[in-house]
Amino acid sequence: MRQNLPTRSNTPDLRDVIAAGTLTAVDRWLHEIPGSWRRSEQVDDLTDAEIRRLVALLTPQTARELFDSIDTPAVVGVLEVLPPVVAAGLLDALDDDRSAEILRGLDDDHRQQVLAGTGAVRSATLRGLLSWPQDSAGSRMNPDVASVSASMTVSDAIEAIRARAAETTLGEGDVLVTASPDHRLVGVVSYLDLVLSQPHTLIATIMDPEVVSVSALEDQEVAARLLADHDLSAVPVVHDGALLGIISADDVVDILEAEATEDAERQGGSAPLEVPYLRASPFLLWRKRIVWLLVLFLAEMYTGTVLRMFEDELSTVVALTFFIPLLIGTGGNTGTQITTTMIRAMAMGQVEMRNILRVVRKEVATGVLIAATIAGIAWVRALTLGVGEEVAITVAISVVVIVLWTSLVASVLPLLLNRLGVDPAVVSGPMITTVVDGTGLIIYFTVARLVITQLGAG
Amino acid sequence: MRQNLPTRSNTPDLRDVIAAGTLTAVDRWLHEIPGSWRRSEQVDDLTDAEIRRLVALLTPQTARELFDSIDTPAVVGVLEVLPPVVAAGLLDALDDDRSAEILRGLDDDHRQQVLAGTGAVRSATLRGLLSWPQDSAGSRMNPDVASVSASMTVSDAIEAIRARAAETTLGEGDVLVTASPDHRLVGVVSYLDLVLSQPHTLIATIMDPEVVSVSALEDQEVAARLLADHDLSAVPVVHDGALLGIISADDVVDILEAEATEDAERQGGSAPLEVPYLRASPFLLWRKRIVWLLVLFLAEMYTGTVLRMFEDELSTVVALTFFIPLLIGTGGNTGTQITTTMIRAMAMGQVEMRNILRVVRKEVATGVLIAATIAGIAWVRALTLGVGEEVAITVAISVVVIVLWTSLVASVLPLLLNRLGVDPAVVSGPMITTVVDGTGLIIYFTVARLVITQLGAG
Repeated sequence: MRQNLPTRSNTPDLRDVIAAGTLTAVDRWLHEIPGSWRRSEQVDDLTDAEIRRLVALLTPQTARELFDSIDTPAVVGVLEVLPPVVAAGLLDALDDDRSAEILRGLDDDHRQQVLAGTGAVRSATLRGLLSWPQDSAGSRMNPDVASVSASMTVSDAIEAIRARAAETTLGEGDVLVTASPDHRLVGVVSYLDLVLSQPHTLIATIMDPEVVSVSALEDQEVAARLLADHDLSAVPVVHDGALLGIISADDVVDILEAEATEDAERQGGSAPLEVPYLRASPFLLWRKRIVWLLVLFLAEMYTGTVLRMFEDELSTVVALTFFIPLLIGTGGNTGTQITTTMIRAMAMGQVEMRNILRVVRKEVATGVLIAATIAGIAWVRALTLGVGEEVAITVAISVVVIVLWTSLVASVLPLLLNRLGVDPAVVSGPMITTVVDGTGLIIYFTVARLVITQLGAG
Repeated sequence: MRQNLPTRSNTPDLRDVIAAGTLTAVDRWLHEIPGSWRRSEQVDDLTDAEIRRLVALLTPQTARELFDSIDTPAVVGVLEVLPPVVAAGLLDALDDDRSAEILRGLDDDHRQQVLAGTGAVRSATLRGLLSWPQDSAGSRMNPDVASVSASMTVSDAIEAIRARAAETTLGEGDVLVTASPDHRLVGVVSYLDLVLSQPHTLIATIMDPEVVSVSALEDQEVAARLLADHDLSAVPVVHDGALLGIISADDVVDILEAEATEDAERQGGSAPLEVPYLRASPFLLWRKRIVWLLVLFLAEMYTGTVLRMFEDELSTVVALTFFIPLLIGTGGNTGTQITTTMIRAMAMGQVEMRNILRVVRKEVATGVLIAATIAGIAWVRALTLGVGEEVAITVAISVVVIVLWTSLVASVLPLLLNRLGVDPAVVSGPMITTVVDGTGLIIYFTVARLVITQLGAG
């Protein structure tokens, strides 16, 4: 992952486009700012008055290009300052699934007003899409799918698709799905198959009857994972066996990207931001971060209690303090390495509860190798700090026990939480670090008591 | 991200299939074990003898289905135990891009032997693909792209595609790319467009001349990001303007998944595993983890030096020790939250060096809100531990300074490293934690010296 650094000079600003006030200026801007992110950022910077002037400059075509490319919060920001009828008109330029996604972003009142300004047929379709639960496959599908029946010939099918394409915009990458008259999904045919087949061939003979489909009520991530695992170009969405729509590969890319972002944010110990980082206000960042920070802070307070329990040891052998950050830091690092790797593997469907024994065996074996490597260095380090041989041995033994203990906790915790129905991605680096900090201190001082003569050890 | 737990009973084992020794058993197994991961795992568990017996049971069709679905290390494991000629025969069932990917996994000798067993034309194509740098768009593209010229009619184009499809397997989801006679890429047409157009229409009139393409030498992630940002169904790959191949959406899904996995692993403080987690041996896990663990351990040793510098303070006011894990823990958590969010935003192309001031302003403002929230609680906690008011004030002030200092360091470090050409994903949770541990201690004891009368403060 490396970014090149584009210069900002010479790239036209949307403000200048609005000031110029011509359709060509809009076209040029769309041509020169191709990326979704740059466009969203510039749209987001506009004042309400500028937004209204921009919208007046859009044709259905440029509206579609703009609103398909910028992110949903940016489109919602535009629609919120427009009269509902104008907003409804803009949505007419977009596909049903995209329109529904945007409508979900509006508050209830605004959404109803915009729907009221939309034609009856379209409004019914959109209400249908909005009725599926948020983040379900149904909420994400494109209902504008070309379906043909298995008994048609290729030329009949092409006629049917043409008729459908005249009414609505069909997704380009979509696989064509055949369904019998009661709209059950019975097979799939690609546009390529249609191009390659002779006109009189029956669809039934060229279709692939083994269709991988997803239920409309499933999470959208299940659909995405299906497409990824089976190298499909699209996943049909069904309910009670009947075909409802399709989720195509470019939607899957968006779903998987959003999932990876959410998991990354959770893993860093925050609640998911849900908006692009640069668009998040300090207050929003605070809100997304403070809950976990406080929970962890309260949990970490336990370390103070542990240390006070060992106050005598600490004042007798002050040198023990020198190794506190090193020991708990190493525990935290080991734990973070394990949980992040495991949680990613769980997200990809590679590790499940039934693998728990295999995981624990693997992690404890790895822990032995790691502990052996680090204990030696810790021992040498303790000696060079001039703290005496007993403290050095205490540190070396503690490293071994802490690494093994952490390996066990970090490998079991995500699987256990998942089993309890909790998203394992909440086992963030900060969380596992906090969990092993207190226990690490107990291990350290217990070892100290056993090893160091001054502390009453034999 | 939640996983359901499928039961293992009733799922056929590949070993049983091999024991049964029939083509139907293989078919049934492919049907009942649809997921890439389960299949790979079972293939990986086979002995050399079992692999050879399995290969004897494969038809070109089932070989394709099996090797397209299991992951590359699993296929490589199979090919390594086969005579080169048999391995070459198996590869013939696969697409060129998939074959090249697998060949890259073999060691040099084996690769040359397998290529020697492949027909001259195919071998030349594969050598061509292998000549592009690893992880480049060229190494990932499918050269089996149907190209037609802009001057053709739709019916000519369909004839050309049929002729091409008779020679090779065209990717279903691929967008058809038109190129002028010198093979320059001049536009793009979808299969759907061909289905919808009248036979006598000129390709030039239905093609979209604004093609987003990627240079073969670019990183594959650039191609993936282009497709994701522009909602394309495929990205053509060019070199010096000439069309070489295409990267389709299902490849992009794989590329982005691999990228997210790599970044997640780096963020957890490991080197990327490169194989699925359950397939990694403890020794491999050790190798991927120990380097960063040692680097961080050596860096963390610095905290011992800092604490020894403040040995007098520690023995005078032992209570100061109680808050060491809490303070450095909070610093580490704050830093981890910031770097993970930023690094994900950088991976998605949303944050760059030129945003540095905006990022720092945002993070410091957020830091002020967070510090204010936590300082109050820290102060109360210190009082309840009965350590006296001076230590309580020291802890509260230290929290504020540590959080602000961490906000600054954590927001600048990833951007700075990226500028220096280092992948910012190496700024893992463990790394930022280690960086702020030592400095956090210096802040803490400096504040203590200034506040606590016993330590000679005014």
